[in-house]
Amino acid sequence: MISRADVDAAAARIGGRVRHTPVLPVADSGAAVFKLEYLQHTGTFKARGALNRILAAAESGELSDAGVVAASGGNAGIAVAYAAAQLGVPAEIYVPVISSPAKVRRLHELGAVVVQTGNEFAEAYEAAQKRVTDTGATFCHPYDHPEMAAGAGTLAVELWEQTGGVDTVLVAVGGGGLLAGVAAALEGRARVIGVEPTGARSLHDALAAGRPVDVPVSGVAADALGARRVGDIAFEVARRTGVRSLIVEDDDLTSARRHLWDHYRITVEHSAAAAMAALTAGAYTPSDGERVAVVLCGANTDPATLA
Amino acid sequence: MISRADVDAAAARIGGRVRHTPVLPVADSGAAVFKLEYLQHTGTFKARGALNRILAAAESGELSDAGVVAASGGNAGIAVAYAAAQLGVPAEIYVPVISSPAKVRRLHELGAVVVQTGNEFAEAYEAAQKRVTDTGATFCHPYDHPEMAAGAGTLAVELWEQTGGVDTVLVAVGGGGLLAGVAAALEGRARVIGVEPTGARSLHDALAAGRPVDVPVSGVAADALGARRVGDIAFEVARRTGVRSLIVEDDDLTSARRHLWDHYRITVEHSAAAAMAALTAGAYTPSDGERVAVVLCGANTDPATLA
Repeated sequence: MISRADVDAAAARIGGRVRHTPVLPVADSGAAVFKLEYLQHTGTFKARGALNRILAAAESGELSDAGVVAASGGNAGIAVAYAAAQLGVPAEIYVPVISSPAKVRRLHELGAVVVQTGNEFAEAYEAAQKRVTDTGATFCHPYDHPEMAAGAGTLAVELWEQTGGVDTVLVAVGGGGLLAGVAAALEGRARVIGVEPTGARSLHDALAAGRPVDVPVSGVAADALGARRVGDIAFEVARRTGVRSLIVEDDDLTSARRHLWDHYRITVEHSAAAAMAALTAGAYTPSDGERVAVVLCGANTDPATLA
Repeated sequence: MISRADVDAAAARIGGRVRHTPVLPVADSGAAVFKLEYLQHTGTFKARGALNRILAAAESGELSDAGVVAASGGNAGIAVAYAAAQLGVPAEIYVPVISSPAKVRRLHELGAVVVQTGNEFAEAYEAAQKRVTDTGATFCHPYDHPEMAAGAGTLAVELWEQTGGVDTVLVAVGGGGLLAGVAAALEGRARVIGVEPTGARSLHDALAAGRPVDVPVSGVAADALGARRVGDIAFEVARRTGVRSLIVEDDDLTSARRHLWDHYRITVEHSAAAAMAALTAGAYTPSDGERVAVVLCGANTDPATLA
């Protein structure tokens, strides 16, 4: 479980190593500002959590010469590889054998040891866990770890300083690390709304069931929002702070992503477009004068799909 | 000829109608900040000048019911069409018959009357001039007009406020409207460097010759930097304020544009990458601690070329 104090501690810990991503004031599109977090190192907010996780492990004495291990062929894996390289820590990233050569190459370029094992993500995840047990390496969970979530939440600390405060923050939800961090950072200060596509409604179904439950995963954003179950931390923080959950359709993601390019020359990945889609698809209608921030949290996408 | 006072007047005039584009602090890449002007309405800085031109014409009584006329199938034409629509003023945009259907469609979408005439830009330009003479419409020159240049310079006013001051500003040069505005805004306060590709060296050759001269135009950025001759205003301001000129190769533009995508998830057009190319190609090497701002001024590009 995490609180605002954890996020503030993370901000102090990683402040000099992350990009303080700017906000774009927007009078149109129903929002007051966009938080341009896709400009972050590695192209997503995940770099914040990865840096915080590793630095905190070093502080506490958890980190050994065995370095860090992660299981992810996506944004979290890239972020852990990046953070480890920045901090001079060895990193092993476990991915399924079916992972795209481009993703594996990027992990190699970041200096990580890439272990391709298993036909599914679950097998790579198990192999990573076994490696941690065998070597004493620090496991970097992609979202359901207090330091990962608190690190992600540091973008909300910046947002508050940059804007002087907002009423509402819209964020995309996959496993919920970003949501947990933002909601903890802004507890008692702003309304936080988690937006998910209909094919990956882990937060929505957990709130309905009263506990995290497995959900089917599909759709255009499944690569980044494809957590089968929302994290325990995200669920707890969402309940405690009164996070609202909204669902949008895949077509809404595509339209919102297109809208951001056409009207702002902003390129984001489909998953990151979920927050914007809540506005452009009409799932959320701000009141007059409501200050709404849309977190644009990732851009690891093929720009050709915007042509 | 324009001065800092003209730019300040422009900023007061258009302030509520333009996006105050953010800066991204960057510790790497040799720069201190990027000015993210490609996030501007219409995708380039040209919207600032077009709004200033039309608003100033309305103030002075120059603007008649005949509205405004421009000759440009590119960023300036789009900006004039946008500004006119925002201000409720009729706009006629003259373009050659060979103009791409996509560009003509965009002008139509913005509500402009599009006149396709002549096989070359020069013929469309002449027809536009004749139309101005016949109807009394206000001609919006794409760069060599005091209000267009002063409007463009307003981004430097923002830059100064956002950063608390910089030592050096790198800007791409086509006809020189942006350069003139920025150099006038920062006269006596910062070093301004105009960067051109080798295939469109209108400023460079003018400074060498002691007067604007015709130059051959070619290369990957010719669509946006393809002015055959630098504007008189840009030449005068450049000489008066001591602007430096740098040349980069076409390959440098392509590499700088790729660098901005790979490392920042920023999409710009080739012309706008010129300012960045001065750093990434080594044409300009900042001193230790020098605060360098790179103006990223346009993103009207096909993102598929970054795939």
